Amino acid sequence: MIPEDHPRYRSLQVREHLARCAAEGILSLEGLTAHGRGEAFDYLIGEKTMESALRAERAAAALLLCAERPVISVNGNTAALAAGSIALLQQASNAAVEVNLFHRTEERTRKITTLLKHHGVRVEEGEAEKLLPLSHDRALCLQSGIFAADVILVPLEDGDRCQALRQMGKTVITIDLNPLSRTARSASLTIVDELTRALPHITTFCSTLGKKEAALLAGTIYQNHFLEDALVEMKKVLTHALD
Amino acid sequence: MIPEDHPRYRSLQVREHLARCAAEGILSLEGLTAHGRGEAFDYLIGEKTMESALRAERAAAALLLCAERPVISVNGNTAALAAGSIALLQQASNAAVEVNLFHRTEERTRKITTLLKHHGVRVEEGEAEKLLPLSHDRALCLQSGIFAADVILVPLEDGDRCQALRQMGKTVITIDLNPLSRTARSASLTIVDELTRALPHITTFCSTLGKKEAALLAGTIYQNHFLEDALVEMKKVLTHALD
Repeated sequence: MIPEDHPRYRSLQVREHLARCAAEGILSLEGLTAHGRGEAFDYLIGEKTMESALRAERAAAALLLCAERPVISVNGNTAALAAGSIALLQQASNAAVEVNLFHRTEERTRKITTLLKHHGVRVEEGEAEKLLPLSHDRALCLQSGIFAADVILVPLEDGDRCQALRQMGKTVITIDLNPLSRTARSASLTIVDELTRALPHITTFCSTLGKKEAALLAGTIYQNHFLEDALVEMKKVLTHALD
Repeated sequence: MIPEDHPRYRSLQVREHLARCAAEGILSLEGLTAHGRGEAFDYLIGEKTMESALRAERAAAALLLCAERPVISVNGNTAALAAGSIALLQQASNAAVEVNLFHRTEERTRKITTLLKHHGVRVEEGEAEKLLPLSHDRALCLQSGIFAADVILVPLEDGDRCQALRQMGKTVITIDLNPLSRTARSASLTIVDELTRALPHITTFCSTLGKKEAALLAGTIYQNHFLEDALVEMKKVLTHALD
């Protein structure tokens, strides 16, 4: 039990929730470590949505709205943290949702699918095939889902898979708190923000952006600006840290 | 299974090892998240021992050598990552070793004690009592261990407990990759380095420092310099990140 007077109470509560999800087999144990990594970078942007991240979220909404076949790829961490938000984003963007895991097991895929459905997500299902240019099981995806997609929103993605998707000519939007990660640097658009803050923003923009405005935004993504802004923000936090 | 050609193979392997330790009940699930947090900061110092961290490790050795009753406080993460290194440091420093956990259970304390003994650590044992000025079980420690210590090396410590130990007048050395954490900022001496790199360095210095030199070093700890140097290094990494 975390005492409520602990200064990091909220953060510790999220950790406890994720630990329960791991115990239930939703989250991989490695996913817990990955979450911690994100936490640290969130700390360095002040645990709030930066102005430039909000612009990236608006651009993400535009890309999803202008896509022919938008897909949201969901892993264990995303499902554990934000199943409800995924449902709302799906409604607003009309994207397909595919469960796609780094530490893939049939059992975990099934559990995550059940959790998402419970929150009202329509989940793409079927037999995954080795369709991505990657070794091992990480090549697996659905023909009707990620393989057919032109725009993929894939929060908290592995760097290798992000690069493979890009090589296939897909537009990849990622949500990644580490602006230096291979994922952040190889995606078409990187949102440097915490998942549960980012998703509702994208959903709001999906509901409010007009068609013309969306087309205009989707045509001009300044990916490097978003990464640079995040680095500048982190340096600011480090500079004033010991004041 | 992590493919060996993955660019983050080593980091992912450590995560897998820790996941196994968590499954065995050595590490708490929350400890996995805490590890990830450290990973992020290690990334920002280039995943190597900084010059200033090496100086801090030398100072830590001096403090341990000059102590009347040095104690090393070991938690699940430390045991999982570095049980063998703790044994060697104990030999070189003659410190007592106490198992002291944030997410404390009798079972986990027992498992960690067994693991440490298996690696040749002499572990302080007995009935823990509420001797620290903290709420809940986190007040528990051994009368003959942490309570009686004048110098405590406590890697990866919680901020509250670090402050409580300082209030009791103890010299607290911590190993913490986050120079901004409450632990890092309230310890007497903070080593901003990764645990498995830091411990062997301290052990080496314990074996090579002369008595006079150790006394001189122990008398003049420039704690703030160590923290500032780490922040400067992190800013450098962020500045050159997109080059």
